[in-house]
Amino acid sequence: MIYLDNSATTYPKPAAVLNSAQRAMKDLGFNSGRGGYRQSLKASEKIFEVRRKIADMFNFQEQNVAFTMNCTYALNMAIKGSVKKGGHIIISSLEHNAVWRVVNKLKADGIADFDIAPFSYDDDKTAANFERLIKSNTCLIVCTGASNVFGVMLPVRKIGAVAKRHSIRFVVDAAQTAGLVPIDAEKDNIDILCAPGHKCLYGAMGTGFIATAQGITLDTIIEGGTGSNSQDAAQPDFLPDRLEPGTLPNSGIISLGAGIDFINSRGADNIYSHELSLTSYLYDMLSANENAALYCPKAQKSKFVPIISFNYKDYESEKTAALLAENDIAVRAGYHCAPLAHKYFGTFATGTVRLCPSAFTTKQECEIFIKTLKKL
Amino acid sequence: MIYLDNSATTYPKPAAVLNSAQRAMKDLGFNSGRGGYRQSLKASEKIFEVRRKIADMFNFQEQNVAFTMNCTYALNMAIKGSVKKGGHIIISSLEHNAVWRVVNKLKADGIADFDIAPFSYDDDKTAANFERLIKSNTCLIVCTGASNVFGVMLPVRKIGAVAKRHSIRFVVDAAQTAGLVPIDAEKDNIDILCAPGHKCLYGAMGTGFIATAQGITLDTIIEGGTGSNSQDAAQPDFLPDRLEPGTLPNSGIISLGAGIDFINSRGADNIYSHELSLTSYLYDMLSANENAALYCPKAQKSKFVPIISFNYKDYESEKTAALLAENDIAVRAGYHCAPLAHKYFGTFATGTVRLCPSAFTTKQECEIFIKTLKKL
Repeated sequence: MIYLDNSATTYPKPAAVLNSAQRAMKDLGFNSGRGGYRQSLKASEKIFEVRRKIADMFNFQEQNVAFTMNCTYALNMAIKGSVKKGGHIIISSLEHNAVWRVVNKLKADGIADFDIAPFSYDDDKTAANFERLIKSNTCLIVCTGASNVFGVMLPVRKIGAVAKRHSIRFVVDAAQTAGLVPIDAEKDNIDILCAPGHKCLYGAMGTGFIATAQGITLDTIIEGGTGSNSQDAAQPDFLPDRLEPGTLPNSGIISLGAGIDFINSRGADNIYSHELSLTSYLYDMLSANENAALYCPKAQKSKFVPIISFNYKDYESEKTAALLAENDIAVRAGYHCAPLAHKYFGTFATGTVRLCPSAFTTKQECEIFIKTLKKL
Repeated sequence: MIYLDNSATTYPKPAAVLNSAQRAMKDLGFNSGRGGYRQSLKASEKIFEVRRKIADMFNFQEQNVAFTMNCTYALNMAIKGSVKKGGHIIISSLEHNAVWRVVNKLKADGIADFDIAPFSYDDDKTAANFERLIKSNTCLIVCTGASNVFGVMLPVRKIGAVAKRHSIRFVVDAAQTAGLVPIDAEKDNIDILCAPGHKCLYGAMGTGFIATAQGITLDTIIEGGTGSNSQDAAQPDFLPDRLEPGTLPNSGIISLGAGIDFINSRGADNIYSHELSLTSYLYDMLSANENAALYCPKAQKSKFVPIISFNYKDYESEKTAALLAENDIAVRAGYHCAPLAHKYFGTFATGTVRLCPSAFTTKQECEIFIKTLKKL
């Protein structure tokens, strides 16, 4: 199989990730933060090591990193935990349904309203588009680090500066950027970062996290046992407990730590450059193919993550993907849970075929993809 | 290590569970319900097989089983998704914080009020205690299948009959019963069943599910991408998609399927009998030890799950657990995230030491525990 659906989930995982997940399930399958026995304490300690790795990578304090099942849960916690009745939210025109459906729900429930700031290839314009929409009741700006369909990056630091200037909380959906491009919560003025563990961080599926800057308070949307303040009817007010009710996915979390080690040993920038060189090749080949329609300029570093969307001939995107699947090439077609981005790029009627390499994708695989496509 | 903290998480897992988790991570690490390629479809199919196993075990329809990170998330979805402003909820006096903190949050937010129905060893009295609290705005009854601290079972079927008679939705927290004692959603009149995958079902940590009877509708508390109806701003209204936004923990879910196979091959009733014989032995030995305080009658089948709470000498429960830990015996002390149950059994000031065997616990291990305790 040639797997080019890494923006959904990276595959394969590094061997160390598989091994650590397996070992954790065998040796560290104990509830952390509860039992006082050695094995439970060891599990807590190993999980805290992963918090520390995440904190180090994105410049948070380790206790402010809480684990979730995926990035979607983290975004729901961040958005709903931040917004009070009558609030106003600004999101970008490239948000995933993990943000768009959430703000729509808040609107449908009469809790908060939202506006959509259009993306521009000019970073200053994008930031200005956010700033222009700020109202007196704007309490939250939510922005994806990069489109999961077209790969274009949003100027997170500039939008963060706007948010800071207006004292508005800033939430970043790092689904396509965490582990790949530099993110520094302090420099980028990020109040809350939400990310999956199973994409560019190379951890197991079923992992994600929410990380908050010091001093950020959040209302809870999920309460339950935390092994702390157990006699108290209210969810604890300290992190990570406040956002981690119930049993954690130990094995997945510990595998995520191994994923981060993998990235650190290869160098995130090397991985990013490798993947961009592949999308650059794919872009050139698709540009030269008169049957392929592309929707963005060629990727530049720091402006794009390695994701390309295209369509082929007059085929529906699903047809192209199905024909590729017959040739054992795995790509995803359709809307990629991001209708806003398709509206913006004019592909709302058709969807697109999406290509995304990983650290493990080879040039040869991309060549086979290009050759196969030509025969369809 | 002698592990007697199985009510937190069963350990070890059956070999087939470890193997299937590992294989799934290696071979089935693809987003289900999204890609049209063979490997993604295969992952969806394997995950649906697990839905079917759960549906078969508890008498639901397979599409009505949605996966969550743990039982706590499932309970939050069930309770908050069911209750509208001005509603009234009845819970039992033995609920875990996964229920108690949730209803307290609803109360603190001015959304719903709740009352607590006292448990009685007389099942009819317990059911009557629930019925007595029903008011015109009672919209939900939530009840644990068994106390996670004292092992006493609630008469779920009888409480379900009360709920049905009054047309009130009935949610069961099966954290300590799913996989161990018979649960039949139809016969028990259960509208929504919430359960962990990592306890008596022997799956990986990081798994749980919510299963709903046909026709039950739920508001959502988490929205996001589902790979379905992607152009729609609203969460899909069909299951399981409605309750499964974002990427699932494939490996954990598939391991849960292997856990259910393990139970089915041994026979849940055989496992239950084995564990009860061990707690029966432990109970007799603790009763004969003048330094041990017990809080319940001896376990009878269908009235207790295999959990014993005790205290030793004038030690704080944590001290007893710490001394046992020095002897490599793993038990949990304190409140077990269930202060209500401690209030009911008069141990709110002290907490308890909790013992819970699993299918893998041996008589010999229990004997060593008893011998060790005597030396403390």
